[in-house]
Amino acid sequence: MHQIELEKVLPAEIEARSFEIITEELGDRLLVPGTEPIVKRCIHTSADFDYAQNLVFTEGVVEHAIDALRNGACIVTDTQMGKAGINKKKLAKYGGEVFCFMSDEDVAKIAKEQGTTRATASMDKAAGLNKKLIFAIGNAPTALVRLYELIQEGRLKPELIIAVPVGFVNVVQSKELIMALKDIPSITARGRKGGSNIAACICNALLYMMD
Amino acid sequence: MHQIELEKVLPAEIEARSFEIITEELGDRLLVPGTEPIVKRCIHTSADFDYAQNLVFTEGVVEHAIDALRNGACIVTDTQMGKAGINKKKLAKYGGEVFCFMSDEDVAKIAKEQGTTRATASMDKAAGLNKKLIFAIGNAPTALVRLYELIQEGRLKPELIIAVPVGFVNVVQSKELIMALKDIPSITARGRKGGSNIAACICNALLYMMD
Repeated sequence: MHQIELEKVLPAEIEARSFEIITEELGDRLLVPGTEPIVKRCIHTSADFDYAQNLVFTEGVVEHAIDALRNGACIVTDTQMGKAGINKKKLAKYGGEVFCFMSDEDVAKIAKEQGTTRATASMDKAAGLNKKLIFAIGNAPTALVRLYELIQEGRLKPELIIAVPVGFVNVVQSKELIMALKDIPSITARGRKGGSNIAACICNALLYMMD
Repeated sequence: MHQIELEKVLPAEIEARSFEIITEELGDRLLVPGTEPIVKRCIHTSADFDYAQNLVFTEGVVEHAIDALRNGACIVTDTQMGKAGINKKKLAKYGGEVFCFMSDEDVAKIAKEQGTTRATASMDKAAGLNKKLIFAIGNAPTALVRLYELIQEGRLKPELIIAVPVGFVNVVQSKELIMALKDIPSITARGRKGGSNIAACICNALLYMMD
């Protein structure tokens, strides 16, 4: 095979071996105690060690999120990709499900009428759900801005906001808004980085910590 | 809003503004002519400028891929996330569809029997399709290794391999294998980086170049 040597790792051991390598390469970098599985899974998903520095956790967020999941909290995402990536079987074990309203016709219609984004209209629709909610936002800063407004207006009190949109327009600012909220548990990828893959992998990291 | 100032950009203009910023920040970095929309979309999807350096294009790959898509080529992915992220409406316009066999029961069964990964078994299943195929591999290096073998055995001749798995075990090597193939058009993210989001966004970049 062209002098290219493959490492011999059994299929079932690939993930464990990956986490070993990540742990080795992190060396003695300081991570917030209790958040290591989340940080390492973000690096596993992206091969980007920036996630060792840019993730911001509110105090006690991991315990609170796990508690909410154990009590059947549902997850709202802003992309079908995020929804596809979340381990829905594990979530269902505790009674939760994943919602993504981005492709809904009513959402498209309202967004058009109001001159806003579908992500904004999706958050309004989610606020109408009578459920414990975790928001996993990997794409649209406008979703975070709307969440901030709904919370300030007293119309929404999420169990957790995973604030990890990626990009260049209002991404940094929208995350700062979420971090400025008092009493709302959040996990934020400060700066421009993030994505639907990161949003899904943080949800999965929490679910896997429950086993 | 806590002194956080949002940039005023209309919903329909967010993407264009993002690409402007990316172009500005790339400055005079040299990209392979004709590949710019792909490189920039990868940066747009990840906020990671490493993609300005790590993407490797075989000669004429963009033209060949667009030609294949125009002639109804189908896309095979190794994750449901990748499948969710690809613009299936646009692909269908030209007669193509997206396949992901990773959750198929027969694939799980064969992988277990053969002590291999579902990604490997998925590639075998895809090789049985009687279609023009583009492989968009964003997760499993074992998928790339199997594609390499199938091609060497003369059992498969893909129109394009998008070789962008992410991670730490055999990821780098599997991409080198694909780049070593003669006569197989490929777009590879050299090194550890990539992901289902990158796989999907390269497919979409190609589709958007066709308009």
